[in-house]
Amino acid sequence: MTVAPTTPYLRVDLDRLRRNVRRAAEWAATHRVALRPHAKTHKSPEIARLQLGSGAVGLTVATLGEAEVLARHGCDDLFVAYPLWVDERAADRLRDLAERATVAIGVDSVEGAARAGRLLAPFAVEVVVEVDSGQHRTGCRPDEAGAVAVAAARAGLRVRGVFTFPGHSYAPDGRAAAAADEARALGTARDALVRDGLEVAVVSGGSTPSWAHLDAGVVTEARPGVYVFGDAQQWELGAMPPESLALTCRATVVSHAGGRTTLDSGSKALGADRAAYATGWGRLLDHPEARIVQLSEHHAVVDLAGEPLPPVGSQVDVVPNHCCAAVNLADGLWVEEYGGLRRWPVAARGRNG
Amino acid sequence: MTVAPTTPYLRVDLDRLRRNVRRAAEWAATHRVALRPHAKTHKSPEIARLQLGSGAVGLTVATLGEAEVLARHGCDDLFVAYPLWVDERAADRLRDLAERATVAIGVDSVEGAARAGRLLAPFAVEVVVEVDSGQHRTGCRPDEAGAVAVAAARAGLRVRGVFTFPGHSYAPDGRAAAAADEARALGTARDALVRDGLEVAVVSGGSTPSWAHLDAGVVTEARPGVYVFGDAQQWELGAMPPESLALTCRATVVSHAGGRTTLDSGSKALGADRAAYATGWGRLLDHPEARIVQLSEHHAVVDLAGEPLPPVGSQVDVVPNHCCAAVNLADGLWVEEYGGLRRWPVAARGRNG
Repeated sequence: MTVAPTTPYLRVDLDRLRRNVRRAAEWAATHRVALRPHAKTHKSPEIARLQLGSGAVGLTVATLGEAEVLARHGCDDLFVAYPLWVDERAADRLRDLAERATVAIGVDSVEGAARAGRLLAPFAVEVVVEVDSGQHRTGCRPDEAGAVAVAAARAGLRVRGVFTFPGHSYAPDGRAAAAADEARALGTARDALVRDGLEVAVVSGGSTPSWAHLDAGVVTEARPGVYVFGDAQQWELGAMPPESLALTCRATVVSHAGGRTTLDSGSKALGADRAAYATGWGRLLDHPEARIVQLSEHHAVVDLAGEPLPPVGSQVDVVPNHCCAAVNLADGLWVEEYGGLRRWPVAARGRNG
Repeated sequence: MTVAPTTPYLRVDLDRLRRNVRRAAEWAATHRVALRPHAKTHKSPEIARLQLGSGAVGLTVATLGEAEVLARHGCDDLFVAYPLWVDERAADRLRDLAERATVAIGVDSVEGAARAGRLLAPFAVEVVVEVDSGQHRTGCRPDEAGAVAVAAARAGLRVRGVFTFPGHSYAPDGRAAAAADEARALGTARDALVRDGLEVAVVSGGSTPSWAHLDAGVVTEARPGVYVFGDAQQWELGAMPPESLALTCRATVVSHAGGRTTLDSGSKALGADRAAYATGWGRLLDHPEARIVQLSEHHAVVDLAGEPLPPVGSQVDVVPNHCCAAVNLADGLWVEEYGGLRRWPVAARGRNG
């Protein structure tokens, strides 16, 4: 396929993507950390294959729906890093999945562990205890991890270890501190399990911003997701330089009215994510000083910081603030290779449950 | 279909939806304003049919992709309220569309008008001149509308009239002022066309927040979109009361860790929209004091303002901040009727181009 689709559409720079995948794999090998990339970022069987082909031990997902899609495409080791509420239907889906793949799920309470055990034991679904290392959304306190793990073991489930997501690494100058919090929380949780007589096979952490600061003395497995593409958030946090950014939204300049530059890449293409530290609703890859200063569903108004306006009808490459959100809006990614474009389906798009 | 899907999923209260559709139609009839609802909100042939069946003169869309989907489902009068950049491919698509429907497109510059004429005249695509009434994203100045319209007419296109979107109505206490700006801008633009010897068949405006203040002495056609569902933005702006809100995201409480209430309705289900005036990332329909205080892709942390935590595993109804964004994340809407659930496809989901 060499005919470009109509704008706005997502483009992947395959050289950069491959380089990002390779570098993460090399970092993990050097530090003797198992790499289990988070597939919620790309939802793409092709990118999953690239990751697994360069040494990833398996994949992380956020939902059963993502796990099912990736299992159908041959991924045989999946960790649902989420404290799933296991009802009869989820239990049926997990049993089906476990016939095709090694499957683990998150658990963050004694009640959740007991319930998962009631519905799933003695099937081969393992559990990993989620602890809160500072983001304060899910995860038990690190010193409670032993009790949760014991409840799971008593309910007949195999406990694989402990995990956290140091999401508070998404803050200016917060990256190293979040990695330190992560190591402390995971170390405490691991010790709690050991004290309760449980083996801890995996101590899992990792986010793209904190990745460079990961404490490989504690963490045995890392689950970064965004690193494959990068985005304006990583650029602004200093976690990834612009020359590593592999995902852009190709947009058309549709209006110069009022002396503005307005693009057709609105929030339905880029996502509406705007962190407190973000300088706008997205960046332009080839205009580092430019900022998207107003965003609606089909309009992005750009402040070009004094640069001349690109002509109406010309195309520019926008870097979304949050690549996971942009990808989940698209049914396909357009991959540049040998001067042409191929379409990779976003096979797990919208699989929220 | 009576089996509810896995959370998070979008539910439509059909009674409320029908009431919202009927009330808007009644308001339009009383004020002798033509109603041309914006279908970008629902992207649903079923809801389009409800609107057209209760007196809407046609539909508004934002993209050619939306127009194509709705035309395939029988809608024969479509206005693309957007200053489309018309290239050869867009011209081909417009010609195909014009075989099945009356089609109009927006134009906001002399150059755009001339170009559209070169590629489209003398086919039956009409143009409507977009003017800026205060949102400052697209649209020429009202006093420039005559020149744009003349350029279109000289290029062989039929000019239908003028339009604006008073998007600055999305501000606390901004609704009446935006409607006044809209009437002033449209009146100026209409007069400019008349002075240049052009007929003005349609003077089109309208947004859901400004709708109650619309000046029917100037505006002949209104294009509200959100009114069919409402959302937390309309609730907080005072434009729609909570008992009229017809779209919710059914979510499961997945964690009480740290004494929090965390739901599985993250930004990939609700959208990440958060206007400056918003009090959070979404509301709970049955807990008016509650706020979503932290949102990530699969987690919504709720502050219940002192109410007791709903049990883990229980379900709650979340009102998204912006219904258009939430709908565009889902492949289907689950419609409550006679105690059961039916699925309506979001047929134009993701049709950004």
